[in-house]
Amino acid sequence: MKPIPDSLRASIGLRVDLIDTPALVVDLDAMERNIQRMADFARKHQVRWRPHAKLHKSAELALLMQQAGATGACVQKVSEAEALAAAGVNDLYISNQVIAGAKLLRVARLAHQLGLRGGRLALAVDSEEGIERLAEAMAVTASDAGIDVFVEIDVGQRRCGVPPGEPAVALALAVSRHARLRFAGLHAYHGRAQHLRGAQARREAIATVVQAARHTRDLIAAAGLPVPLVTGAGTGTLVHEAASGVYGELQAGSFLFMDADYASNEREPAQPVFEHALFVKTQVISSQETHAVCDAGHKSHAIDSGLPIVAMLPPERALRYANGGDEHGILYADGNKARLPSLGRMLWLIPGHCDPTVNLYDFLIGVRGGLAHGVVERIIRVDARGALT
Amino acid sequence: MKPIPDSLRASIGLRVDLIDTPALVVDLDAMERNIQRMADFARKHQVRWRPHAKLHKSAELALLMQQAGATGACVQKVSEAEALAAAGVNDLYISNQVIAGAKLLRVARLAHQLGLRGGRLALAVDSEEGIERLAEAMAVTASDAGIDVFVEIDVGQRRCGVPPGEPAVALALAVSRHARLRFAGLHAYHGRAQHLRGAQARREAIATVVQAARHTRDLIAAAGLPVPLVTGAGTGTLVHEAASGVYGELQAGSFLFMDADYASNEREPAQPVFEHALFVKTQVISSQETHAVCDAGHKSHAIDSGLPIVAMLPPERALRYANGGDEHGILYADGNKARLPSLGRMLWLIPGHCDPTVNLYDFLIGVRGGLAHGVVERIIRVDARGALT
Repeated sequence: MKPIPDSLRASIGLRVDLIDTPALVVDLDAMERNIQRMADFARKHQVRWRPHAKLHKSAELALLMQQAGATGACVQKVSEAEALAAAGVNDLYISNQVIAGAKLLRVARLAHQLGLRGGRLALAVDSEEGIERLAEAMAVTASDAGIDVFVEIDVGQRRCGVPPGEPAVALALAVSRHARLRFAGLHAYHGRAQHLRGAQARREAIATVVQAARHTRDLIAAAGLPVPLVTGAGTGTLVHEAASGVYGELQAGSFLFMDADYASNEREPAQPVFEHALFVKTQVISSQETHAVCDAGHKSHAIDSGLPIVAMLPPERALRYANGGDEHGILYADGNKARLPSLGRMLWLIPGHCDPTVNLYDFLIGVRGGLAHGVVERIIRVDARGALT
Repeated sequence: MKPIPDSLRASIGLRVDLIDTPALVVDLDAMERNIQRMADFARKHQVRWRPHAKLHKSAELALLMQQAGATGACVQKVSEAEALAAAGVNDLYISNQVIAGAKLLRVARLAHQLGLRGGRLALAVDSEEGIERLAEAMAVTASDAGIDVFVEIDVGQRRCGVPPGEPAVALALAVSRHARLRFAGLHAYHGRAQHLRGAQARREAIATVVQAARHTRDLIAAAGLPVPLVTGAGTGTLVHEAASGVYGELQAGSFLFMDADYASNEREPAQPVFEHALFVKTQVISSQETHAVCDAGHKSHAIDSGLPIVAMLPPERALRYANGGDEHGILYADGNKARLPSLGRMLWLIPGHCDPTVNLYDFLIGVRGGLAHGVVERIIRVDARGALT
């Protein structure tokens, strides 16, 4: 595990105003409320939740959610799984395709290691070749370890996954023919639907998704193969998958931190209220006639889902954040120069998209007691930062 | 210095096809040609070059360019300067504003350390308050170390910097009143002009910049203060600053790797030919009817200046890269399904913007002999990855 730098460790116990900028700060109280609401929601709907660790990439946070009732964690990469397993997470699902032979050997090794300590590993597949290669890699390992295999169907994302229906049946049967591969069910995730702004649009999109997943599940069962689980769903649509009677597990991850993009969705009444819990702290370093400049550019937050929003802590006034390049943000107080923040002022940004923002940082700074007067409680490792392979 | 992981070290001496994906790969031959052309250009125009390390964040590459004639390196952040100094770079210019008291103490400490070993540190200022705070921090250090201070003028970037003319004269005189601050000259960089596509548009923009810099320089000299240097320029416009007779130093950094964005500029005839030298290696992990999916999404390359371009290595055919989210890229062979790459195929992407792309990786993989048949020669540390403060 990477050591926490002295400068960060020294900030524990200090007030938030002393955190050096830019920094990625977690409001621990807000995050814990989000976890509690998700746990309550899953219990109420009798579904499992396996939150996606591609968001936080942190074993500490994965384990915190397991303590609250989560079933392990999802990841997207073999190296993410390795990093989280090394830091104590036992039940991992690589919800993605793996094709390279050398990577599949790592998958097999990890399945073996997790099995030895009472855990398990799962992987998604969407091709006969992927299944054959995985089976070959599993055969190379000395152990009897098995691996859970989900067949991914494309339910609207237009990315990985075979079409629902017969192509998925063929893959499920192919999985079941290999001794060390356990057919675990269907992976059916519609990423684009998460970001449809209107509640009705998301509801309609997921109705189609559920229909495709149910149809495919029934076809596989009719072919004589039980389908233990249908897994999927994100923060934008989870209420629909949870109520479907088809999905047994939710993969939503973003609810933990809630980025500006998800907050732009029209809220579904049944959706739990999730609060912003992740912020980039920044400081004004230049004050000009028409604008101010802060020290957080797009090396300190991802901009793929839009620019960050300036959080308004009373008596803070509305400011617009504009792109200032790699290391700068430009702040405008539209139509009111007098409201521009002064040189040295600290501000808090809500990232447009939390997942790739977290991936820019090796550590998160956990604050207790709010952003205005809170205190640094602990430093959270981003164990799988930069884990791309 | 961070240790090189065994898996990366083991790749030294292997052929490029064995590099695990996604990976950030430097074509060392192309990079060295870029360095040689830049060195020749600077010599011919009798200007210094202090390439911006915000691109590569690597002491090894900064020192390589110093050996070829560069005058130290620019950085944007105190922590970048600290990381490069710790790894052996002696002459550093933080071409940015620093306002926080704790950071300025680090600046003073670094100026002291570099001074002791025969190096030097410089900083940009754009406010009286910034100058006063810097002078206070310098006074706290026990040593007699001084620091070079550049006054930043806004020549069109509309970010940091005071307006050219009298405001800059006032700041230059303010700097000169402090014993440990050495007025080093003017910082005049027009970032937006770098990306104007037409050669004539860039030429006209820089003509205005040069006029403003010359006028300000002459005003300060008329006030009795010599102006040792005017520094600025980027890869898109450096031919104009070099020929101006006003600029004594070029800060261009991107020429080293040349991203897709800079390559979209209409080339100025006098501009040296810089080649793409930085690539994301990726693999096809899913093959569908209409598209293929690769394992490099926007956690493996920055998209602020547009999506990456698929490099065509003969007999590779034209593919279009589309955004597939955090961990996936979608590949289309517009109008020709037959040309879609097969499952497992390795591809090379040219990043839209190299600076924030490098910042996603802890190490670069240096390849000798080209991307088709080359061999991994060495692993290059990105010493200042994630150095934001």
